[in-house]
Amino acid sequence: MKVVVLGGDGFCGWPASLHLSDLGHDVVIVDNLSRRRIDEELGTSSLTPIAGVEERLAAWLETSGREIRFAQIDVAQDYDGLRDLLATERPDALVHFAEQRAAPYSMKSPAHKRYTVENNTNATHNVLCALVEAGLDTHLVHLGTMGVYGYGTAGMKIPEGYLDVEVTTEEGERVPQQLLYPTNPGSIYHMTKCLDQQLFAYYAKNDRLRITDLHQGIIWGTHTDQTLRDERLINRFDYDGDYGTVLNRFLMQAAVGYPLTVHGTGGQTRAFIHIRDMVRCVQIALENPPRLGDRVKIYNQMTETHRVRDLAELVARISGATVELVPNPRHEAPENELHVTNDTFLDLGLEPTFLSEGLLLEVEHVAERYAARADLEKIPCTSVWTQEQQPGVPTSRRPVDQAV
Amino acid sequence: MKVVVLGGDGFCGWPASLHLSDLGHDVVIVDNLSRRRIDEELGTSSLTPIAGVEERLAAWLETSGREIRFAQIDVAQDYDGLRDLLATERPDALVHFAEQRAAPYSMKSPAHKRYTVENNTNATHNVLCALVEAGLDTHLVHLGTMGVYGYGTAGMKIPEGYLDVEVTTEEGERVPQQLLYPTNPGSIYHMTKCLDQQLFAYYAKNDRLRITDLHQGIIWGTHTDQTLRDERLINRFDYDGDYGTVLNRFLMQAAVGYPLTVHGTGGQTRAFIHIRDMVRCVQIALENPPRLGDRVKIYNQMTETHRVRDLAELVARISGATVELVPNPRHEAPENELHVTNDTFLDLGLEPTFLSEGLLLEVEHVAERYAARADLEKIPCTSVWTQEQQPGVPTSRRPVDQAV
Repeated sequence: MKVVVLGGDGFCGWPASLHLSDLGHDVVIVDNLSRRRIDEELGTSSLTPIAGVEERLAAWLETSGREIRFAQIDVAQDYDGLRDLLATERPDALVHFAEQRAAPYSMKSPAHKRYTVENNTNATHNVLCALVEAGLDTHLVHLGTMGVYGYGTAGMKIPEGYLDVEVTTEEGERVPQQLLYPTNPGSIYHMTKCLDQQLFAYYAKNDRLRITDLHQGIIWGTHTDQTLRDERLINRFDYDGDYGTVLNRFLMQAAVGYPLTVHGTGGQTRAFIHIRDMVRCVQIALENPPRLGDRVKIYNQMTETHRVRDLAELVARISGATVELVPNPRHEAPENELHVTNDTFLDLGLEPTFLSEGLLLEVEHVAERYAARADLEKIPCTSVWTQEQQPGVPTSRRPVDQAV
Repeated sequence: MKVVVLGGDGFCGWPASLHLSDLGHDVVIVDNLSRRRIDEELGTSSLTPIAGVEERLAAWLETSGREIRFAQIDVAQDYDGLRDLLATERPDALVHFAEQRAAPYSMKSPAHKRYTVENNTNATHNVLCALVEAGLDTHLVHLGTMGVYGYGTAGMKIPEGYLDVEVTTEEGERVPQQLLYPTNPGSIYHMTKCLDQQLFAYYAKNDRLRITDLHQGIIWGTHTDQTLRDERLINRFDYDGDYGTVLNRFLMQAAVGYPLTVHGTGGQTRAFIHIRDMVRCVQIALENPPRLGDRVKIYNQMTETHRVRDLAELVARISGATVELVPNPRHEAPENELHVTNDTFLDLGLEPTFLSEGLLLEVEHVAERYAARADLEKIPCTSVWTQEQQPGVPTSRRPVDQAV
């Protein structure tokens, strides 16, 4: 099938594009290269030496014999460009990764909050609006986040997108209903994915767009079968305080002899998925589109849950690193349970790569191999969640946890 | 108290500003005059002869002795201007009417959909972000819509913002929970008010902003005690297919001898409120702010519900007009029940103006008095909800009703 990948130069988009091309699909990448621009803004760079987009694509053609085309379009800003591309290409599917994806970056400043909301909301709405205007029945697959659920509800297993409840009628009768799971985002970034959900629900209802939303856990790992074939195909690996995900940061910290920095007590439980499983999940989602007229299909795209402090201890055990507790820059519950349903992907054949198998490989192949490229000053997370966490700001309001 | 009214030149904003000023509050209007610009775009104008903003304000000073200040700022586009104004004025409260508010206008074209999403989302997010950046504990009162609820759930009375449900734990235990009522918007415009809800919930939780969201029914009526004092203070009255609300359209149609155009069967039940009650509700909301750390306070701002065809028959009986059924441009259930809780405002002293009392007065004082100004060609609603309702578009997808 023909697949347009929005954000196909990014951390998830690039390996997903290669995987889909490798399966024989005709892949077109659309990207505004914003992630590379943000590296310049932050003075950071990928631990792994990533090639430019043209060089990447040439290397892929050379090693696989398959062409991936590329269009530099800002999906959030250039609606006409996006619509014209879709009207010309008429893709069978559209994979939408084209959003600012770091929670700490989204909290850095008012300008970063506003950029994240504007960029992500406009990107998603432009995609939906363009599909309708172009009159296409393209299947839209979007990368969402487990963060839309918040961090779990006492005793409940998080379902895949929709929550079974009972409501009471005026006559006192109890009636079962299924609702879109109520959101409880932990950052501006996570909130934008909740806004996306509303946009999807509306366009699925009013315009009968076929939409799959993948509520993804935290990605770990770097390589896929395709990115390993040539160093010019290598995927990015972020370890800085804004873009580095928790496990990748621990791996890199261990490799350079930096203490593993755990926020708060490390009692936060999070959902994880290996990047190889992510690309397979995208493939599975594309192969199982909703039918015309269906509500948005929601999958939980994660394979295991762990407490952050347990992860730190695991990495410390493998590597001999030490663990250091630092103040939590986030505004969140210090400890939480998390039970998640992920039956749909397992039933459709996903065979997870678990941490227990993949972790040591990742340490050797990535973190240790490229450790010399690390800039240790970029490791601390300096973005804070509230005004009173800013150094030097008087504490007029103290954040407290609040149920939603 | 000092109150900044965003969108204070508009249909709700202007009478609310006068009412608050009349009560002795120090009122500052912020507006980009977009509603006047849209009149030019659509070739429409208010049935009532509204004065320019400077003339309005001068007339108010002259008749009341009270000054309302005015700042022309585009809240969605000029973040710095908004933040600086808030930081300088440090208002006790902010009333936020600064959104594109017509469902048909939001559906006119892809450009109108995109404008409505960008304008409304950025306006609301800029307000929230600016309050946090300026370090203010200002009470934010926002005009939302009953449309966030969708059109009622079988047998259930719509609560004020939060829904009591029971969920089942992993151990099979039933646990009561209170959730933000699941949204089911009927247009892009209504959807933006659902996005606003998510933004409010997040900022109330993370930054402890004090926020009240008023889920308003369809406004009818034109005059308030203040706008009646001088013709230069008159409020706008829209009767065109995009901005005219259903009852005001019927009144004007009756006055000019045009048939009352009912969409579909007219079996849609809607919630209504008189404009005099709206200004009192805003006052009551301002006098009863949430406490620091509270979740968003949500009131249903409506006083009665009616089926559209019953309204048409009522107006026809008063005026001798005929009723004409026309195809429904909207994508919605043809008939619905609607039961709504509105206890909070009634408990706080609101004394509603019911249709049965006020309708005849409105016909005489507004519709008949200014009938000669009407442009009959602007009456039909030409905005349609889906591609296949466009004249000449092949029907590849036929809209069906879908539960959400």
